[in-house]
Amino acid sequence: MTILEQTLAAIRPADPGALAEARAHHDRLTKPRGALGALEEVAVRLAGAAAVNPPPMPAPAALAIFAADHGVHAQGVSPWPQEVTVQMVGNFLAGGAVANAFAAQVGASVTVVDVGIAADLVPAPGLMVGKVAHGTADMTLGPAMTAEQAVAVLETGIAVARDLVAQGARCLVTGDMGIANTTASAALICAFTGQDPAEVTGRGTGVDDETLARKIEVVRRALRVNGLDGPGASALSALETLAAVGGFEHAAIAGFVLGGASLRVPVILDGVIAGSAALAAAGLAPDVVDHCVAGHRSAEPGHAVALAHLGLRPLVELELRLGEGTGGLLAHPLVCAAVRVMHEVATFDSAGVTEKEA
Amino acid sequence: MTILEQTLAAIRPADPGALAEARAHHDRLTKPRGALGALEEVAVRLAGAAAVNPPPMPAPAALAIFAADHGVHAQGVSPWPQEVTVQMVGNFLAGGAVANAFAAQVGASVTVVDVGIAADLVPAPGLMVGKVAHGTADMTLGPAMTAEQAVAVLETGIAVARDLVAQGARCLVTGDMGIANTTASAALICAFTGQDPAEVTGRGTGVDDETLARKIEVVRRALRVNGLDGPGASALSALETLAAVGGFEHAAIAGFVLGGASLRVPVILDGVIAGSAALAAAGLAPDVVDHCVAGHRSAEPGHAVALAHLGLRPLVELELRLGEGTGGLLAHPLVCAAVRVMHEVATFDSAGVTEKEA
Repeated sequence: MTILEQTLAAIRPADPGALAEARAHHDRLTKPRGALGALEEVAVRLAGAAAVNPPPMPAPAALAIFAADHGVHAQGVSPWPQEVTVQMVGNFLAGGAVANAFAAQVGASVTVVDVGIAADLVPAPGLMVGKVAHGTADMTLGPAMTAEQAVAVLETGIAVARDLVAQGARCLVTGDMGIANTTASAALICAFTGQDPAEVTGRGTGVDDETLARKIEVVRRALRVNGLDGPGASALSALETLAAVGGFEHAAIAGFVLGGASLRVPVILDGVIAGSAALAAAGLAPDVVDHCVAGHRSAEPGHAVALAHLGLRPLVELELRLGEGTGGLLAHPLVCAAVRVMHEVATFDSAGVTEKEA
Repeated sequence: MTILEQTLAAIRPADPGALAEARAHHDRLTKPRGALGALEEVAVRLAGAAAVNPPPMPAPAALAIFAADHGVHAQGVSPWPQEVTVQMVGNFLAGGAVANAFAAQVGASVTVVDVGIAADLVPAPGLMVGKVAHGTADMTLGPAMTAEQAVAVLETGIAVARDLVAQGARCLVTGDMGIANTTASAALICAFTGQDPAEVTGRGTGVDDETLARKIEVVRRALRVNGLDGPGASALSALETLAAVGGFEHAAIAGFVLGGASLRVPVILDGVIAGSAALAAAGLAPDVVDHCVAGHRSAEPGHAVALAHLGLRPLVELELRLGEGTGGLLAHPLVCAAVRVMHEVATFDSAGVTEKEA
């Protein structure tokens, strides 16, 4: 078996016993039933994913920022020049980006992985190289990558997840960098959910009306050229779809999510790039979703579509639209808090607190 | 001047220069403009409150849980017996409550203050005593407390804020415990905003339909008995209103918020109890709001009304309805992350990153 096949085979759905035990546990704790709202479900979810209650504390966290460029940038979908991808990688490695500040805040490590930047990088501490090409091909002219490239980058994502867990990470956070990657995300979300590009495509880092209209048209064209817009679209496999309109960072994040899930280590999804990559991962192994937590909901309209399709509720909703893993990192203390309750909070019996009248 | 008068006189509005500098600073950082959404406004807000950009890191945080009982409990507004207040205080002191777990998660200290529990507590480490009565009087029969009691408890809250800041706290988080205190909160919110009890009163820790209907009627009666429901209501001062339908923990939290603001230390408000107490604080010193951050929005309908009246946007919206300071604690890492950006993130110039095309 290939590494990808091994990984897909190792992914298990949430354990029903652990889910039930976590729910019952919650009702014995010294608080009114359900008083922790959506956080109760997070703890239950992680118990199911880990197949044990209480689930292990999801710390420390490790952020992996997968960086790549996009052939579709040539279609004028972003006001940012392509070289910003490699410049921001330099910023991550120097510790100067928002992702670095948020990672410091939550005690997460930061790993940057070049999976297809359109420039050759100087080796540096904290930089891993898994480049398969200098950017994807332009998806409006044909597939963005070959199936072989997609598998290679998926396996890079798996390898990064395995490495970080071997180094002690107990929670993985997805991150991305790639000028034009909200365009590829929109195309993936349309392909996997059947939604129209006009409903899914957004302003990314802040494009004007004219660029947004062009971006929607570009997504529509990419879907059509790759046979993803008609009734025959569903005949394409998840791997073919990912290769057709994804970016290398999407493939890597899909692999990273699969890798974490295969090791029963929870993965916090960042924004729309992660959400679209998770659709691809779920297409390859539906049970992977049980191991994911939606860190936040970004301002990008396609993100809500992706999350609804995955059945995930985001923890942070503050209109972030930055990527890099920033929204996932912000959610990490909330996820930890949810799990910590299961380890540390007294029960009505143990604390001698009277329960409410029935 | 009394301590209360000194405190009110020391509260300054947000500094316009620091606000402007923080906004301009945000636009030079290596991220698309506005990409941090609502978190950008948090950093700007704290710069204005501190009158300096970047604002000081709001850490470590200190949680104060003000606990008291309520005469209105006799009206059958809660399914929980009154002794749960003192039992939960024991749980806080033993470290077994959700607030303790969340405080541990964010590195906050926990101080419990008895400002009017209907039982005498055994002295214990971490417990401060500022009791003025064994619970408030029943507000459906007349004022819940005297003006002298309200001032005494406001000053206790101020003293706790001063002590915690003197001990090194750079952010205060409000907490509360008091069976029946969502009833008093609803009455305060109606009195300060003019909303109807039916719009504001909620299920608290989870009351049934019959109890909810009674609770609404109890709030309505308390407002009427105390002259807070008619056109003459606005003639009552904020202090008289607080004394009429507030709880001792509401008075203490109002003082705590005023105390933090007077020292230019930001205060994260927890849920509906804090929101209603903040309305009283704002009635005494309108500029206090510039020093507050709304930690979360609880499931209680009156909380949204209070936050809208205060002009605050909550950071966490996960349908928590626990109190104790739990929602405020969850927001603390988000507030820290927002401020950390201003200290650590590189500018386009310093990082050599190209800005987007105009």
